[in-house]
Amino acid sequence: MPVTTTLPSDLASWMGTIQTRVEAALSRGMPAADRVPARLHHAMRYAVLEGGKRVRPLLAFAAGEVVNAPPERLDAVSCALEFIHAYSLVHDDMPCMDNDVLRRGKPTVHVEFDEATALLVGDSLQTLAFEVLSHPRLCENPGVQLDMLSTLAIASGTRGMAGGQAIDLAATGVTLTLPELEFMHIHKTGALIRAAVKLGGLSGERADPSVMHALDQYAKHIGLAFQVVDDCLDAEGTTATLGKTAGKDAVQGKSTYVSLLGLSRAKALAEELRQSAHDVLQPLGARAARLGALADFVVRRQF
Amino acid sequence: MPVTTTLPSDLASWMGTIQTRVEAALSRGMPAADRVPARLHHAMRYAVLEGGKRVRPLLAFAAGEVVNAPPERLDAVSCALEFIHAYSLVHDDMPCMDNDVLRRGKPTVHVEFDEATALLVGDSLQTLAFEVLSHPRLCENPGVQLDMLSTLAIASGTRGMAGGQAIDLAATGVTLTLPELEFMHIHKTGALIRAAVKLGGLSGERADPSVMHALDQYAKHIGLAFQVVDDCLDAEGTTATLGKTAGKDAVQGKSTYVSLLGLSRAKALAEELRQSAHDVLQPLGARAARLGALADFVVRRQF
Repeated sequence: MPVTTTLPSDLASWMGTIQTRVEAALSRGMPAADRVPARLHHAMRYAVLEGGKRVRPLLAFAAGEVVNAPPERLDAVSCALEFIHAYSLVHDDMPCMDNDVLRRGKPTVHVEFDEATALLVGDSLQTLAFEVLSHPRLCENPGVQLDMLSTLAIASGTRGMAGGQAIDLAATGVTLTLPELEFMHIHKTGALIRAAVKLGGLSGERADPSVMHALDQYAKHIGLAFQVVDDCLDAEGTTATLGKTAGKDAVQGKSTYVSLLGLSRAKALAEELRQSAHDVLQPLGARAARLGALADFVVRRQF
Repeated sequence: MPVTTTLPSDLASWMGTIQTRVEAALSRGMPAADRVPARLHHAMRYAVLEGGKRVRPLLAFAAGEVVNAPPERLDAVSCALEFIHAYSLVHDDMPCMDNDVLRRGKPTVHVEFDEATALLVGDSLQTLAFEVLSHPRLCENPGVQLDMLSTLAIASGTRGMAGGQAIDLAATGVTLTLPELEFMHIHKTGALIRAAVKLGGLSGERADPSVMHALDQYAKHIGLAFQVVDDCLDAEGTTATLGKTAGKDAVQGKSTYVSLLGLSRAKALAEELRQSAHDVLQPLGARAARLGALADFVVRRQF
């Protein structure tokens, strides 16, 4: 797999613009840190702000370009996605789950605050995701908005992210087959990435079914690629470059693409998935260029 | 306060009918216990089914009578309310929060299963609440359905239930003033009870503002009365009659209406709130009779 450490300058610039925009939307979308209950609000902001690549918002904005979605609506969609993602990280890091102390280069929420606060932070961020997405007049067509809410809920629940987490939990110390590993990741990380692309597509309010289908195929490839690359980085990276504890999959006895395939076959799989993602975008033409560039980024990133 | 141990027979019969109906809806509304991830689904069903008075669904159905709401829609609303309520109980009982071992006469979820499962059960039940309420065609008017979702999210988040929980956490071992105690309860339990009545009212799809206002005033009185009575029952009851650990407020050094007012003044306050609830229902006439009867039940219950 060819590895580039620098991004194409137009992608880097676009990513920077969206990341800055989303950071501002996230900050506006959460209660101020001095508002009662202040400790909880402070901890929510700590968990969400100044960290993360914002991959899901980037995917939503890029999918939104395909359907000419208004950026204000994509801001709300991005907040909902990141609040769900952040809630899952906060809870996954807790002592009764992965018991991790470092996330995005900072102490995890239960370390910086306390366990009870971390529990409430996760709970409240999940609620806030649905609050921001149910805001009156977010969409011109309230039926589309309901579809967004339903999509996010299904992707986050036991048929999606939380279900994947439960499967992951049950699989610790057990060697999975490749199909079992894929099944877990399709749920644990794939479902929310797929939702990110779909929500971006729905933000245009009148996307045609063939476009939505192409977006969904793209999202499936990218979701899996994202996890394969994560496994490679976890095996190769250092805590400093990752901003989270490196090598913990091996320590926890978790099956990964690297443990099942070896590093070089895992990298080849990621590259295949990147190519498949480009292939399904083909019929969408130039308006999907950003999604293609993001596929390259997801597979070739170093962190 | 006059105490009746038996309910008026028509109220008891109506409550039984609704409770049976809601139990069936809750069971249908959750994934089967043998569906992957089976342990999580099994634990979710354990947390929700066969327990609880279903006070929030009863309030939603009674408010629904005022506006001629279809019972199928009230089933969905009841599921959403009970999933949120059950999630909050599962998380509140965890070791990092109240560390309780008994709930509804059964071992709490983290005792019966494990902490990681309890965490995921709460997370997944919250998600499921928003999933059931975002179901396509639940309402004829999708704008009303969005209003329901927004109401539930705001009532559950840091401006509602989770915020109240955070305030409660910070107040353990601290003597609160009566206004501080009221502020906490308006959030911790009051917000979701108020949402229950509002969702019942919205289920009619075209409730007029004066009706919605009367319902909301009623819900405020009942929400507070519910907590005052809970405090009285905790002080007087036994673990056997309550189905949860009795006397734990005093053990944990929590301020309650009983600790601040004494038992007899707390009972008098509950009776006052019951009367106020009846007063605000007056303009709604006979169609609000069930809400009136529920006010009596909430204040005069023994469990």
